[in-house]
Amino acid sequence: MAPLRTALLQGPPGVPGSVADSLRALDEAAARAAAQGARLLATSELFLTGYALGDRVAGLAEPADGPSAARVDAIAARHGLAIAYGFPERGSGPGTVFNAVRLVGPDGTGLAVYRKAHLFGDYERAVFTPGDRPLVQATVDGVRIGLLICYDVEFPEAVRVHALAGTELLVVPTALMRPYEFVPQVLVPARAYENGMHVAYANRCGPEGEFDFAGLSCLAGPDGAVRARAGAGPELLVAEADPEVLRAARADTPYLADRRPELYRDLT
Amino acid sequence: MAPLRTALLQGPPGVPGSVADSLRALDEAAARAAAQGARLLATSELFLTGYALGDRVAGLAEPADGPSAARVDAIAARHGLAIAYGFPERGSGPGTVFNAVRLVGPDGTGLAVYRKAHLFGDYERAVFTPGDRPLVQATVDGVRIGLLICYDVEFPEAVRVHALAGTELLVVPTALMRPYEFVPQVLVPARAYENGMHVAYANRCGPEGEFDFAGLSCLAGPDGAVRARAGAGPELLVAEADPEVLRAARADTPYLADRRPELYRDLT
Repeated sequence: MAPLRTALLQGPPGVPGSVADSLRALDEAAARAAAQGARLLATSELFLTGYALGDRVAGLAEPADGPSAARVDAIAARHGLAIAYGFPERGSGPGTVFNAVRLVGPDGTGLAVYRKAHLFGDYERAVFTPGDRPLVQATVDGVRIGLLICYDVEFPEAVRVHALAGTELLVVPTALMRPYEFVPQVLVPARAYENGMHVAYANRCGPEGEFDFAGLSCLAGPDGAVRARAGAGPELLVAEADPEVLRAARADTPYLADRRPELYRDLT
Repeated sequence: MAPLRTALLQGPPGVPGSVADSLRALDEAAARAAAQGARLLATSELFLTGYALGDRVAGLAEPADGPSAARVDAIAARHGLAIAYGFPERGSGPGTVFNAVRLVGPDGTGLAVYRKAHLFGDYERAVFTPGDRPLVQATVDGVRIGLLICYDVEFPEAVRVHALAGTELLVVPTALMRPYEFVPQVLVPARAYENGMHVAYANRCGPEGEFDFAGLSCLAGPDGAVRARAGAGPELLVAEADPEVLRAARADTPYLADRRPELYRDLT
């Protein structure tokens, strides 16, 4: 199987609250990523609207098949690459908003929507409803993609659920603030290694409202090597998630085969 | 509560197969550790006998209350510090040998024995019986100590079981070979951070039989900081496991409170 060339859009440079600006930035990034041969583009958490929105987030939330979704589908189809983007999803219940990521295939077809299960801090808990489906996957170019969001990936249990279900590339839109640089620098590479998977961790960067996002987006490999690492500013990273690297790593560190699940009962 | 000053003996310089040499090295290290104010000394995996023993390990195995245990108890009492040491434990069944760690209190009283649950590779599986008790703890100077061995700590589930049960300092005798330096450099600090605990990871170093041990012993803190780190050669590390650092880290990154165990059912 061929490597999946993966682009991570660290940003956005757009204006919080302006979905139109974000869609323009996405279209431009998709063009650049496709020109570099990428078949998948991942954005940060809540990319479409911005993160630091307070109560405004509810007014900007859309259903997973809303008008912005149709715009993203068109961008994906136009540039011929899959897109995983963060957005606030309007749920069916009154006032229900999820912090979600949606994956669109290279032909513009919606493949999956994941709702963040581990909400972070007072702000997120005040405005979002937590998701209840831990495992959302889809396949792009033969590679099994899994979806988590930000704080989710800091829980080893959440990533292990994916590993046990065959996720090969975990795509994680994020909004990781300073001073939590330990997460992209250490925890994310640890998750990739201990689970025998690639992890694409796409962060925001710079100040936004009361937050200061840390950048440091990365594609971490199952062999412990970080394939690509962003700095503190806007950046489009491109690197390969290589199934052959994954196969070799799982043979060298067979953690999934060597688990003793009968000893882990206290976890659930 | 006062910090627990903890010493890690990276080595040993002794001759594999010579328990007498190992006990002499332990006595000397305990004297040096006590002189530096340590209240706990941790050794590497299978410290008493050496690691690369092949079939000879069964002949050197002793019960947890055997003659070498009595020698270690006397060393602990003489120097007034707790000792966690690795040894091959003779079980009650015929031919049953466990890869074990025993913790002795500063007064020379045996406190706990843990048997490695995740055996590593063909050699260990050929000569050892895996342990079946995931959680072994004891208290030293008011600090809740947990015990794991080497490969165990690479499984996030095994460490999480300890975090949920209140382990504050996880003591991990190990025999980590090259080229697995990723484990002490990245995985061990990740375990400390994601679980809000200190991890004392005491490795062997240098060549022994077919193996080449990587050193890099460390005391990793719950705040992501590595309190002390050894190089590639024999070394006695001393650093503090500070309950105040632990309390602050658990408040800052409340992973245990934010878990969603109902979503982790696939793990067990």
